Amino acid sequence: MQGKNPKDSRTTMTDMVLPSETNPLNNLFGGELLARMDRAASIAARRHSRRITVTASVNHVAFNQSVPVGSVLTVEAAVSRAFNTSMEVYIDVWMEDRFSGERTKANEAIYTFVAVDDTGRPTEVPPLIPETELETQRFDGALRRKQLSLVLAGKMKPNDATELKALFLGNQV
Amino acid sequence: MQGKNPKDSRTTMTDMVLPSETNPLNNLFGGELLARMDRAASIAARRHSRRITVTASVNHVAFNQSVPVGSVLTVEAAVSRAFNTSMEVYIDVWMEDRFSGERTKANEAIYTFVAVDDTGRPTEVPPLIPETELETQRFDGALRRKQLSLVLAGKMKPNDATELKALFLGNQV
Amino acid sequence: MQGKNPKDSRTTMTDMVLPSETNPLNNLFGGELLARMDRAASIAARRHSRRITVTASVNHVAFNQSVPVGSVLTVEAAVSRAFNTSMEVYIDVWMEDRFSGERTKANEAIYTFVAVDDTGRPTEVPPLIPETELETQRFDGALRRKQLSLVLAGKMKPNDATELKALFLGNQV
Amino acid sequence: MQGKNPKDSRTTMTDMVLPSETNPLNNLFGGELLARMDRAASIAARRHSRRITVTASVNHVAFNQSVPVGSVLTVEAAVSRAFNTSMEVYIDVWMEDRFSGERTKANEAIYTFVAVDDTGRPTEVPPLIPETELETQRFDGALRRKQLSLVLAGKMKPNDATELKALFLGNQV
Amino acid sequence: MQGKNPKDSRTTMTDMVLPSETNPLNNLFGGELLARMDRAASIAARRHSRRITVTASVNHVAFNQSVPVGSVLTVEAAVSRAFNTSMEVYIDVWMEDRFSGERTKANEAIYTFVAVDDTGRPTEVPPLIPETELETQRFDGALRRKQLSLVLAGKMKPNDATELKALFLGNQV
Amino acid sequence: MQGKNPKDSRTTMTDMVLPSETNPLNNLFGGELLARMDRAASIAARRHSRRITVTASVNHVAFNQSVPVGSVLTVEAAVSRAFNTSMEVYIDVWMEDRFSGERTKANEAIYTFVAVDDTGRPTEVPPLIPETELETQRFDGALRRKQLSLVLAGKMKPNDATELKALFLGNQV
Repeated sequence: MQGKNPKDSRTTMTDMVLPSETNPLNNLFGGELLARMDRAASIAARRHSRRITVTASVNHVAFNQSVPVGSVLTVEAAVSRAFNTSMEVYIDVWMEDRFSGERTKANEAIYTFVAVDDTGRPTEVPPLIPETELETQRFDGALRRKQLSLVLAGKMKPNDATELKALFLGNQV
Repeated sequence: MQGKNPKDSRTTMTDMVLPSETNPLNNLFGGELLARMDRAASIAARRHSRRITVTASVNHVAFNQSVPVGSVLTVEAAVSRAFNTSMEVYIDVWMEDRFSGERTKANEAIYTFVAVDDTGRPTEVPPLIPETELETQRFDGALRRKQLSLVLAGKMKPNDATELKALFLGNQV
Repeated sequence: MQGKNPKDSRTTMTDMVLPSETNPLNNLFGGELLARMDRAASIAARRHSRRITVTASVNHVAFNQSVPVGSVLTVEAAVSRAFNTSMEVYIDVWMEDRFSGERTKANEAIYTFVAVDDTGRPTEVPPLIPETELETQRFDGALRRKQLSLVLAGKMKPNDATELKALFLGNQV
Repeated sequence: MQGKNPKDSRTTMTDMVLPSETNPLNNLFGGELLARMDRAASIAARRHSRRITVTASVNHVAFNQSVPVGSVLTVEAAVSRAFNTSMEVYIDVWMEDRFSGERTKANEAIYTFVAVDDTGRPTEVPPLIPETELETQRFDGALRRKQLSLVLAGKMKPNDATELKALFLGNQV
Repeated sequence: MQGKNPKDSRTTMTDMVLPSETNPLNNLFGGELLARMDRAASIAARRHSRRITVTASVNHVAFNQSVPVGSVLTVEAAVSRAFNTSMEVYIDVWMEDRFSGERTKANEAIYTFVAVDDTGRPTEVPPLIPETELETQRFDGALRRKQLSLVLAGKMKPNDATELKALFLGNQV
Repeated sequence: MQGKNPKDSRTTMTDMVLPSETNPLNNLFGGELLARMDRAASIAARRHSRRITVTASVNHVAFNQSVPVGSVLTVEAAVSRAFNTSMEVYIDVWMEDRFSGERTKANEAIYTFVAVDDTGRPTEVPPLIPETELETQRFDGALRRKQLSLVLAGKMKPNDATELKALFLGNQV
């Protein structure tokens, strides 16, 4: 299978934050943001694989930035690494102030999808070939994250997670 | 502040899976499940703190089980540990087959919420006092997870995460 | 067919009241509450019968208590009596004040469901065996309500509604 | 206050039945129909009173007719009688077959609304003056239904419900 | 095929404007109004043709009047002219002030629908026979609008659009 | 006021077509597409003006291409010309086949927005400076379209619409 670049799957979903999606402080519900990111990331995974894709896992997500009602929110997703039948998708979320237009990073998240056939059985996907420096950095981190995920699920012994040990040398997971 | 038990915040949200929430395989979208869990967990955090609560983070979530359209889905959330102004909420998700009534574990997830006042400033919450064995086990794990979260965010050095090292002795995070 | 208890079908649906579901006084629309109760009661009926269930009727419902936006609303439904192919479901609705956590009864309602097969034809359901005093009281009232329903539909002569006459002796329907 | 006729409040809400509103038999959920009727009836009550109106009660509703997905559903509501601060609204529901255009009665329901001011306090409404024979018949029945409602709520002794006794002479409630 | 009158397809859709459908000035989004008009007009086209109908085009629509949240909005649609397999539908939109009940024209729009069979192939529709003066005027204008539409789509040369030249004599399109 | 380029307002909204948005042929409702385009175009107009923007009009829109459920739909909007207080926004709609990934033009539309202040009064916007050949072509066409709009609204005499006469020389509006 011929490899693809992150730009082949890059998906941009810009939309407003409506009153019906906000908490009592008039900020976007965390759960709504998780759902929007899932939709954008799922499209990115489909663009990479041209298969039905199902969410397999979501990495640790922190909500450091509240997103007020009326903001314009942009969710950008692209496949960051492909494994045999699964794809890691990296998601960047930006928000724009309604009036100043100032654009700030609202969030980052990492979802994993599996490509399946019509009966739901996992099926092979093309390899991902990073191009830019940032893409390469995310590509490299994906293996470490996959090991962490396997350790967390009790499917790999921490001692075998050679890449994961980088966690205890640097602070980048 | 007087402590509270997990049962004081336990929240049960049972509802059907509708066609408008499903992917091409007729299973619930991962993002929809993340949003339902956020709503249930947010109510649990509010019941514990009696404050406005905002989602602070979501732990690693794996989707091992697909949830077909027409299933009855039960999301059960309860505070598993309280820190100064934040609460960890543990969520168990069960699904029932439409006809046999067979109930299977569909998912588990852990969200963290911060209690805030009307201006959005973090505010103190009561301590959590576990009662059952499972509650105690989740209470103990919460500190380890908090350290992992701080390490992942670059706010704690791995070497200082004394509890986290248990990760590399056992496989329970 | 082996009988079942109300606890076998008890269904709890806790969720927030969102701004998009409220009237100009910022209280939950009556129609939204009717729809939520229908969903919870329908799940209870399905849990009792393990069949597809369709709403057959709704008893008189009074809205004595307004439910403000931001409330946590809990709808609890359980089968109160089974007839040949139909089930009466009793629904209790509680609301919690967002901050004090005070829990008050917001409503009570009674829906009737019919169990059907895939072609929509009514099909037999297990008998309901009440356990607690309240369950027994609701079980007894169900026959009176069924007669009232038949009289209202012109399918039974008031004179034959022997149980219904209790209405004119007590005030509990 | 000058009286108004039913035609002054008559409200017609025609819309399709969408897949997201249907049960596993592809028929409209009972709860969705209850919610649509509430919206149409609430507009009728507002047209009669020119006040904010809140749902006070729903009479017994039977679902004798299933409404398949893709049907065109017409909900027609008009005030049938005004009391001091409340209004009874009579609702007729028609459905049209998608292709033949055949129009059949799908349902009838009776809701009661209270007119309130900005602080939620009940406020006087104009009297209702029926014009047609059907309107007069519904106007007459409204008093009987109001007594039944009071008896059911334990606010009137059955012996005092003089109009209600018609129930035991005829079968029209 | 026997002709039909506009009254045979007339469709009335009255509903409230909810907060979740409004912009930062608390007025109905233009896009929401376009979608409501499409639903009402699509029902009118189906009532005329008794076929599946799909939106073919929307004429120029101007939003001169803002529609505040809480308004009661009435969308009235009726077929104004039938061509071989297509129908022009004229839509009038009225809004009522929540309290005064004053009814003002909020909008007018013209949509065109094509009748299709189950495979999506265009299929013949009955002719439209106008009755009132206004209906006749709209019927006459429809041919002019159809020519404009063909010219705009580059499917007719302006010189051949004999009816369209009326545009440059009067100002009624 | 300093001019802006189309790229400063370009807005990309990629999302799936869900079953709840489709007609009986399983294609996207025309009205839903109109609403999505309105949201994307409104964000583009806000990005250009940094003001609240309200939809003023929608040009003739033709639906030549049906969009099947499950498609990935991309709506791209950018300001094509600014007048004193209004902006013309040009919208291109692309759809991708779920599996082949083939991308085809699904639609084009032109909306006009007015920038307003907090009280709803029109307020000045920056000029638009086209850069590419396509942008210049759309910029030039905008004046012709504005004249057509004024003629259609009866606010300009056809004879004064000097630019509009191009319509009768070319077929590009």
